[in-house]
Amino acid sequence: MELEEKRAATAWLRVPEEHELPEEVRQLFAKFVEKTGFVPNVARNFALLPEHFLRWFRYYDFLMRSEGHLSRKEREMIAVVVSATNRCEYCLASHTAYLREITGDPVLPEVLAANFRRARLTPREQALLEFAYQMTVSSETMSSAEVQRLRAAGLSDEAIFEAAQVAAMFNFTNRLANALGWVPNEVYYHLHRCKEA
Amino acid sequence: MELEEKRAATAWLRVPEEHELPEEVRQLFAKFVEKTGFVPNVARNFALLPEHFLRWFRYYDFLMRSEGHLSRKEREMIAVVVSATNRCEYCLASHTAYLREITGDPVLPEVLAANFRRARLTPREQALLEFAYQMTVSSETMSSAEVQRLRAAGLSDEAIFEAAQVAAMFNFTNRLANALGWVPNEVYYHLHRCKEA
Repeated sequence: MELEEKRAATAWLRVPEEHELPEEVRQLFAKFVEKTGFVPNVARNFALLPEHFLRWFRYYDFLMRSEGHLSRKEREMIAVVVSATNRCEYCLASHTAYLREITGDPVLPEVLAANFRRARLTPREQALLEFAYQMTVSSETMSSAEVQRLRAAGLSDEAIFEAAQVAAMFNFTNRLANALGWVPNEVYYHLHRCKEA
Repeated sequence: MELEEKRAATAWLRVPEEHELPEEVRQLFAKFVEKTGFVPNVARNFALLPEHFLRWFRYYDFLMRSEGHLSRKEREMIAVVVSATNRCEYCLASHTAYLREITGDPVLPEVLAANFRRARLTPREQALLEFAYQMTVSSETMSSAEVQRLRAAGLSDEAIFEAAQVAAMFNFTNRLANALGWVPNEVYYHLHRCKEA
């Protein structure tokens, strides 16, 4: 009963109605619907402070989806590993779905979420995910040796910085989602599960 | 010797020269110099990816310095407590200085950095800092009870969301600074130390 009530709401804070929102936010919501068929709950929840939402999103979207120095697959792999480490229901549901979409592989995201060290990875991916994991659990113990390991795996300083931003970003979003009771759209759990889909 | 070498550089990744940077970044640096006399090393380091830097900064600056639902003092107190918890040399040096500047009090930031539960706080400040601390160390254990405690302390949902974003933001910046060896400008350690200054 209590669980059902929790599931019915998408956040512990008030979620604004769409008609309350400024035009720019509503246009963005319309773009989400056009592309994917739904508005991610993170966007509805974040729009409680519309100007904060827009400024965060312009950075987040560029970080995750622009051309960049890492592949989109690498960025989503970091997102999944950090979100699993922080036990973030919302970001795990959504970013395992994005990673399934990008790779067409329904298995890899599950293994990354369980234990990324068991996944079949390239040395570059392995180095990136170890770096993201260490940033998440003990950034204060890190030294220039970790940066050197990434360079040795072929990453440019720009690519290393991008990886660090992605890992840091999910330490940001995971904490918002966990602290504010953000519930993922259920559709995420079903998207891109079947190889033939 | 090794320590001195570490201190001479401000990051483990390459720091771009000012002449390499796009006009908008150089204008921002000039504004920093005009306001404070120096360019924060975080800005020089982050400008390795200028478009990322600008998009992050437009959000960060709005979150920390716009009118907002929390006072600037409350936001900087959260910054200090999160940065102390994550043991972030850079953000502790810079945000204890900002908090000294805002409050004129050279003692409060030291106590917050040591153990915020020993600081003389209003019930509202206490509730905010407990929330930020819990978000930092164990966000996955949080429940709607924590949100209720903040509401009981008089905070609106908008103010709670702003507080959560500030706490999450320093979990982002702390990790970048720790993972990439960002060293604060030494001037931070000297700013606003004396009550009469």
